[in-house]
Amino acid sequence: MTFDSYYAVIMAGGGGTRLWPLSRQARPKQMLTLFGDRSLFQVAVDRLEGLFSPERICVVTVAEQVEGLRAQVPEIPLENYFVEPMPRGTASVVGLAVAALQHRSPDATMVILTADHFIANVDGFRQTLRAAYAVAQRGHLVTLGIAPTFPATGYGYIHIGDALGTFDGMEAYRVEGFKEKPDETLAREFLESGRYAWNSGMFVWRVNAILAEIERQMPVLYRGVERIAAAWEAEGHQPKETIREVWQGLKPQTVDYGIMEGARQVAVLPAHDLGWSDVGSWDALFSVLPLDTAGNAVYRSKHIALESSSSLVFNAGDRERLFVTIGVQNLVVVDTGDVLLVCHKSKAQQVRDIVRLLKESGDTRHL
Amino acid sequence: MTFDSYYAVIMAGGGGTRLWPLSRQARPKQMLTLFGDRSLFQVAVDRLEGLFSPERICVVTVAEQVEGLRAQVPEIPLENYFVEPMPRGTASVVGLAVAALQHRSPDATMVILTADHFIANVDGFRQTLRAAYAVAQRGHLVTLGIAPTFPATGYGYIHIGDALGTFDGMEAYRVEGFKEKPDETLAREFLESGRYAWNSGMFVWRVNAILAEIERQMPVLYRGVERIAAAWEAEGHQPKETIREVWQGLKPQTVDYGIMEGARQVAVLPAHDLGWSDVGSWDALFSVLPLDTAGNAVYRSKHIALESSSSLVFNAGDRERLFVTIGVQNLVVVDTGDVLLVCHKSKAQQVRDIVRLLKESGDTRHL
Repeated sequence: MTFDSYYAVIMAGGGGTRLWPLSRQARPKQMLTLFGDRSLFQVAVDRLEGLFSPERICVVTVAEQVEGLRAQVPEIPLENYFVEPMPRGTASVVGLAVAALQHRSPDATMVILTADHFIANVDGFRQTLRAAYAVAQRGHLVTLGIAPTFPATGYGYIHIGDALGTFDGMEAYRVEGFKEKPDETLAREFLESGRYAWNSGMFVWRVNAILAEIERQMPVLYRGVERIAAAWEAEGHQPKETIREVWQGLKPQTVDYGIMEGARQVAVLPAHDLGWSDVGSWDALFSVLPLDTAGNAVYRSKHIALESSSSLVFNAGDRERLFVTIGVQNLVVVDTGDVLLVCHKSKAQQVRDIVRLLKESGDTRHL
Repeated sequence: MTFDSYYAVIMAGGGGTRLWPLSRQARPKQMLTLFGDRSLFQVAVDRLEGLFSPERICVVTVAEQVEGLRAQVPEIPLENYFVEPMPRGTASVVGLAVAALQHRSPDATMVILTADHFIANVDGFRQTLRAAYAVAQRGHLVTLGIAPTFPATGYGYIHIGDALGTFDGMEAYRVEGFKEKPDETLAREFLESGRYAWNSGMFVWRVNAILAEIERQMPVLYRGVERIAAAWEAEGHQPKETIREVWQGLKPQTVDYGIMEGARQVAVLPAHDLGWSDVGSWDALFSVLPLDTAGNAVYRSKHIALESSSSLVFNAGDRERLFVTIGVQNLVVVDTGDVLLVCHKSKAQQVRDIVRLLKESGDTRHL
């Protein structure tokens, strides 16, 4: 089943320094092959099969990444790659997509998707997109929530409000509010209350509904969107110069803070059992990789373990190399050939500090 | 100062599986370059400078290692390399050296030295060799003891008995007995009593004194030694065939159990502040390597550490490789290019189990 005027917009402009040394400036997170032999971006497109034809899939990215993404997914038409001249936050990504779709199909509904997340349950994901479409037809801005499975401190949370009813078999709710990444104690309270969902960063809305909120809450962006839409109409193709001029006048802003928190009609669809992870860091990746009998996740490595468990051995270098671990727990070992990272899993967030240190030292070889 | 008829015999036939993956069958421990740019064997020879001319330095090794050792230390005459056809324990090593020296210099005194130990205080070591020579002239079999600095469980111990007097400024004692590697509790008792020394595996004695004990305690070895000495005299060179025949009839035995424990006149010279280590495993190596300000020992590695301490990063592979550790303590990371070992320091002894596993699996590439 497909939908009339339902567009998928994949945000694919990020970097992902917390997966360094695997992710690099020239090899951003969404282009990494972390599962099977398809990159995260390719898998994000694969997930849409049966719901969106390639003509209905759009990609928002930055100029440096267009070529790499196009090479990975040539089936999406070139004109569906929308290019930001420089990153200005997810609110601007949404604005650019809105300008493009306003031009093509003013009555469209769109889903904003991430290019670099993992979803184990693809059928469940597609069901969520169907249900969200139905909710969006009521005029709601729909956030795709994830029913939490552990007290995560690395995700934002959505406070679930009153029930809105059942849509395509899923319960939708009003949103009481958005919560920033909590500390461990608060995360535990959120989990136990049953009234919070993880904020997946994915949204579904009608183009005219989101445009009305942009107009009300972000007038500068709104004027830019209108200007770009007009130029697109006039030029008959992506108006690069106009986008550049508009982008230079925008302040970076996220869609969560810039639009969703202050929006009038916000709904959440808390999805259960999606097996979702933002794969935002090595510990997050570990949590979704298959484990061997000792509880280790071993990626493309010849590995011998003695008294080692709950550890990740990730080999992106020489496949003939032998990895041996003895007496280690909760360790992340990542080998990219030029870099070896050995990191306690609880310190996985600090990988970005290494990237910062390398930048500051001017050592660009490993960035 | 040198001595009349004082010979150094370096035992250099070992393997050293606990330093795998650095040590291999084709690259045994004594040939490794762990400190500066000289191998352990080269350093063992360097330490003798000023006490023994190259003609007075002998090496006992196995056939497969002669070429490699000769290449590292060409200044020792070829005829001073005594070759075991197969290893038969340190008692047989001593027997072969005795046979050779009996032929050359029946009144000689000899020191048996290890080729693969670390000694920080070379002056102190030379002083100990001088003192041991003096004690040996009284007819004692002298063991070089090391005053313990921590409750080591990886070394044998010597129980120190009555004082024998001062020799060249060092106190010598009778030996009460030899103790096998103790458990932690016993090791602590040994340390606190002040009456125990580590058994360094180095000995000094007159050739005729050790020969008398071999005759009394190891008659099979004694007859072999006599036979080899006679053949050496007759042939004018190392009698390889005779050695092979004798060796086939020997049972493996250590000098400690085979001779020293039952010997009548055994003395110990407990050396203080030698900075000695047998470098028998990665944790032992760590204990004698210089530390950086974070308490890590970093060997030939570009290394960035965050919240990491008391760890060894040992790079024997690509020198351009960047090593990053985050949040790790007491970890051993060894990179040889074809193998990466990550091992908790407290499990360093289990490295030999990996070598055994590889042997059993028939995977000889990394052995």
